[in-house]
Amino acid sequence: MKSLSKSNCEACSADAKKLSADEIDTLLREIKGWELITDDNIQKLTRSFDTGNYARSMAFTNAVAALAEESDHHPLMIVEYGRVTVVWWSHKIKGLHLNDFIMASRTSDAF
Amino acid sequence: MKSLSKSNCEACSADAKKLSADEIDTLLREIKGWELITDDNIQKLTRSFDTGNYARSMAFTNAVAALAEESDHHPLMIVEYGRVTVVWWSHKIKGLHLNDFIMASRTSDAF
Repeated sequence: MKSLSKSNCEACSADAKKLSADEIDTLLREIKGWELITDDNIQKLTRSFDTGNYARSMAFTNAVAALAEESDHHPLMIVEYGRVTVVWWSHKIKGLHLNDFIMASRTSDAF
Repeated sequence: MKSLSKSNCEACSADAKKLSADEIDTLLREIKGWELITDDNIQKLTRSFDTGNYARSMAFTNAVAALAEESDHHPLMIVEYGRVTVVWWSHKIKGLHLNDFIMASRTSDAF
Protein backbone atom coordinates (compact mmCIF):
# COMPACT_ATOMS: atom_id res chain seq x y z
CA MET A 1 0.00 0.00 0.00
CA LYS A 2 1.27 3.45 -0.90
CA SER A 3 2.27 5.38 2.19
CA LEU A 4 0.18 8.44 2.97
CA SER A 5 3.09 10.84 2.75
CA LYS A 6 3.85 9.63 -0.80
CA SER A 7 0.24 10.03 -1.99
CA ASN A 8 -0.85 13.09 -3.93
CA CYS A 9 -3.28 15.71 -2.74
CA GLU A 10 -6.22 16.09 -5.09
CA ALA A 11 -7.88 19.41 -5.71
CA CYS A 12 -10.64 19.62 -3.14
CA SER A 13 -13.90 21.24 -4.20
CA ALA A 14 -16.83 22.28 -2.03
CA ASP A 15 -18.75 19.16 -3.14
CA ALA A 16 -15.94 16.72 -2.35
CA LYS A 17 -17.05 14.00 0.05
CA LYS A 18 -16.01 14.16 3.69
CA LEU A 19 -14.45 10.98 5.03
CA SER A 20 -16.72 8.63 7.00
CA ALA A 21 -16.09 7.93 10.68
CA ASP A 22 -14.73 4.48 9.74
CA GLU A 23 -12.37 5.92 7.14
CA ILE A 24 -11.12 8.46 9.70
CA ASP A 25 -10.54 5.73 12.30
CA THR A 26 -8.52 3.69 9.82
CA LEU A 27 -6.43 6.63 8.57
CA LEU A 28 -5.76 7.93 12.10
CA ARG A 29 -3.83 4.74 12.81
CA GLU A 30 -1.41 5.70 10.04
CA ILE A 31 -0.49 9.12 11.43
CA LYS A 32 0.99 8.51 14.85
CA GLY A 33 0.84 11.39 17.31
CA TRP A 34 -2.02 13.18 15.58
CA GLU A 35 -5.26 13.81 17.43
CA LEU A 36 -8.77 14.20 16.04
CA ILE A 37 -10.49 17.30 17.44
CA THR A 38 -13.82 18.96 16.76
CA ASP A 39 -13.63 22.74 16.70
CA ASP A 40 -16.72 24.81 15.94
CA ASN A 41 -18.40 21.65 14.61
CA ILE A 42 -15.52 20.98 12.19
CA GLN A 43 -13.36 17.87 12.51
CA LYS A 44 -9.63 18.65 12.36
CA LEU A 45 -6.29 16.90 12.86
CA THR A 46 -3.79 18.41 15.28
CA ARG A 47 -0.33 17.63 16.60
CA SER A 48 2.12 19.63 18.73
CA PHE A 49 5.81 19.31 17.92
CA ASP A 50 8.34 20.10 20.66
CA THR A 51 11.18 21.94 18.98
CA GLY A 52 13.21 23.02 22.02
CA ASN A 53 14.02 26.52 20.77
CA TYR A 54 12.82 29.33 18.56
CA ALA A 55 15.18 28.81 15.63
CA ARG A 56 13.94 25.23 15.32
CA SER A 57 10.30 26.36 15.67
CA MET A 58 10.77 28.76 12.76
CA ALA A 59 12.69 26.25 10.62
CA PHE A 60 9.91 23.70 11.07
CA THR A 61 7.19 26.32 10.42
CA ASN A 62 8.89 27.25 7.15
CA ALA A 63 9.28 23.60 6.15
CA VAL A 64 5.57 22.94 6.69
CA ALA A 65 4.71 26.17 4.85
CA ALA A 66 6.73 24.95 1.84
CA LEU A 67 4.77 21.66 1.83
CA ALA A 68 1.55 23.65 2.09
CA GLU A 69 2.39 25.88 -0.89
CA GLU A 70 3.47 22.86 -2.98
CA SER A 71 0.06 21.24 -2.47
CA ASP A 72 -1.98 24.43 -2.30
CA HIS A 73 -3.40 23.14 0.99
CA HIS A 74 -2.68 25.24 4.06
CA PRO A 75 -2.78 24.43 7.78
CA LEU A 76 -3.21 26.64 10.80
CA MET A 77 0.05 26.78 12.76
CA ILE A 78 0.60 28.06 16.29
CA VAL A 79 4.25 29.05 16.62
CA GLU A 80 5.78 29.32 20.12
CA TYR A 81 9.29 29.46 21.52
CA GLY A 82 9.77 25.71 21.88
CA ARG A 83 6.71 24.27 20.17
CA VAL A 84 4.77 24.35 16.93
CA THR A 85 1.18 23.10 16.80
CA VAL A 86 -0.14 22.21 13.34
CA VAL A 87 -3.86 21.86 12.53
CA TRP A 88 -5.13 20.43 9.23
CA TRP A 89 -8.65 20.39 7.82
CA SER A 90 -10.34 21.14 4.50
CA HIS A 91 -11.94 24.56 4.61
CA LYS A 92 -14.08 23.94 1.51
CA ILE A 93 -15.85 20.89 2.93
CA LYS A 94 -15.67 22.04 6.57
CA GLY A 95 -14.16 18.74 7.62
CA LEU A 96 -11.61 16.07 6.82
CA HIS A 97 -10.57 14.89 3.36
CA LEU A 98 -7.91 12.32 2.53
CA ASN A 99 -5.70 15.33 1.68
CA ASP A 100 -5.54 16.28 5.37
CA PHE A 101 -4.15 12.88 6.32
CA ILE A 102 -1.63 13.08 3.49
CA MET A 103 -0.50 16.51 4.70
CA ALA A 104 -0.40 15.39 8.36
CA SER A 105 1.84 12.49 7.37
CA ARG A 106 4.15 14.78 5.35
CA THR A 107 4.24 17.21 8.29
CA SER A 108 5.46 14.44 10.60
CA ASP A 109 8.11 13.45 8.04
CA ALA A 110 9.35 17.07 7.93
CA PHE A 111 9.94 17.15 11.68
CA MET B 1 9.08 61.40 23.68
CA LYS B 2 10.90 58.42 22.23
CA SER B 3 8.53 56.27 20.18
CA LEU B 4 7.84 52.80 21.54
CA SER B 5 9.21 51.04 18.49
CA LYS B 6 12.55 52.86 18.89
CA SER B 7 12.88 51.97 22.59
CA ASN B 8 15.05 49.10 23.71
CA CYS B 9 13.81 45.93 25.35
CA GLU B 10 15.41 45.35 28.74
CA ALA B 11 16.23 41.93 30.03
CA CYS B 12 13.15 40.82 31.93
CA SER B 13 13.66 38.78 35.08
CA ALA B 14 11.10 36.93 37.15
CA ASP B 15 11.12 39.76 39.71
CA ALA B 16 10.56 42.55 37.17
CA LYS B 17 7.51 44.63 37.96
CA LYS B 18 4.33 44.14 35.99
CA LEU B 19 2.83 47.33 34.58
CA SER B 20 -0.01 48.90 36.54
CA ALA B 21 -3.50 49.18 35.06
CA ASP B 22 -2.92 52.92 34.50
CA GLU B 23 0.39 52.33 32.75
CA ILE B 24 -1.26 49.73 30.52
CA ASP B 25 -4.12 52.11 29.64
CA THR B 26 -1.65 54.83 28.67
CA LEU B 27 0.59 52.54 26.62
CA LEU B 28 -2.36 50.89 24.83
CA ARG B 29 -3.17 54.25 23.24
CA GLU B 30 0.24 54.17 21.56
CA ILE B 31 -0.24 50.81 19.83
CA LYS B 32 -3.25 51.20 17.56
CA GLY B 33 -5.11 48.01 16.65
CA TRP B 34 -3.82 46.00 19.60
CA GLU B 35 -6.24 44.52 22.10
CA LEU B 36 -5.69 43.69 25.76
CA ILE B 37 -6.87 40.16 26.57
CA THR B 38 -6.72 38.02 29.69
CA ASP B 39 -5.92 34.39 28.99
CA ASP B 40 -5.56 31.92 31.84
CA ASN B 41 -5.26 34.88 34.26
CA ILE B 42 -2.38 36.40 32.26
CA GLN B 43 -2.75 39.78 30.55
CA LYS B 44 -1.56 39.73 26.94
CA LEU B 45 -1.56 41.98 23.87
CA THR B 46 -3.00 40.64 20.63
CA ARG B 47 -3.57 41.85 17.08
CA SER B 48 -4.64 40.06 13.89
CA PHE B 49 -3.05 41.16 10.63
CA ASP B 50 -4.90 40.46 7.37
CA THR B 51 -2.27 39.43 4.86
CA GLY B 52 -4.48 38.33 1.95
CA ASN B 53 -2.44 35.25 1.02
CA TYR B 54 -0.09 32.61 2.35
CA ALA B 55 3.15 33.98 0.97
CA ARG B 56 2.49 37.26 2.74
CA SER B 57 1.49 35.45 5.95
CA MET B 58 4.82 33.62 5.96
CA ALA B 59 6.86 36.70 5.05
CA PHE B 60 5.28 38.61 7.95
CA THR B 61 5.74 35.65 10.33
CA ASN B 62 9.44 35.52 9.46
CA ALA B 63 9.81 39.29 9.86
CA VAL B 64 8.28 39.17 13.36
CA ALA B 65 10.43 36.12 14.21
CA ALA B 66 13.55 38.11 13.26
CA LEU B 67 12.48 40.95 15.59
CA ALA B 68 11.84 38.38 18.33
CA GLU B 69 15.28 36.80 18.00
CA GLU B 70 16.97 40.24 17.95
CA SER B 71 15.37 41.11 21.29
CA ASP B 72 15.32 37.61 22.75
CA HIS B 73 11.60 38.12 23.40
CA HIS B 74 9.22 35.79 21.60
CA PRO B 75 5.52 36.03 20.81
CA LEU B 76 2.93 33.37 20.10
CA MET B 77 1.88 33.57 16.44
CA ILE B 78 -1.12 31.93 14.80
CA VAL B 79 -0.38 31.60 11.09
CA GLU B 80 -3.28 31.11 8.67
CA TYR B 81 -3.75 31.42 4.91
CA GLY B 82 -4.66 35.11 4.88
CA ARG B 83 -4.05 36.18 8.46
CA VAL B 84 -1.42 36.21 11.18
CA THR B 85 -2.38 36.78 14.81
CA VAL B 86 0.43 37.89 17.13
CA VAL B 87 0.26 37.66 20.93
CA TRP B 88 2.82 39.29 23.24
CA TRP B 89 3.32 38.87 26.97
CA SER B 90 6.22 38.30 29.36
CA HIS B 91 6.36 34.66 30.38
CA LYS B 92 8.68 35.31 33.33
CA ILE B 93 6.33 37.74 35.07
CA LYS B 94 3.13 36.13 33.74
CA GLY B 95 1.88 39.48 32.51
CA LEU B 96 2.74 42.66 30.68
CA HIS B 97 6.08 44.48 30.77
CA LEU B 98 7.04 47.59 28.83
CA ASN B 99 8.95 45.19 26.52
CA ASP B 100 5.64 43.78 25.25
CA PHE B 101 4.45 47.20 24.15
CA ILE B 102 7.80 47.88 22.48
CA MET B 103 7.54 44.58 20.58
CA ALA B 104 3.87 45.16 19.68
CA SER B 105 4.82 48.53 18.23
CA ARG B 106 7.71 47.02 16.24
CA THR B 107 5.39 44.26 15.01
CA SER B 108 2.97 46.86 13.62
CA ASP B 109 5.86 48.67 11.93
CA ALA B 110 6.93 45.40 10.28
CA PHE B 111 3.49 44.89 8.67
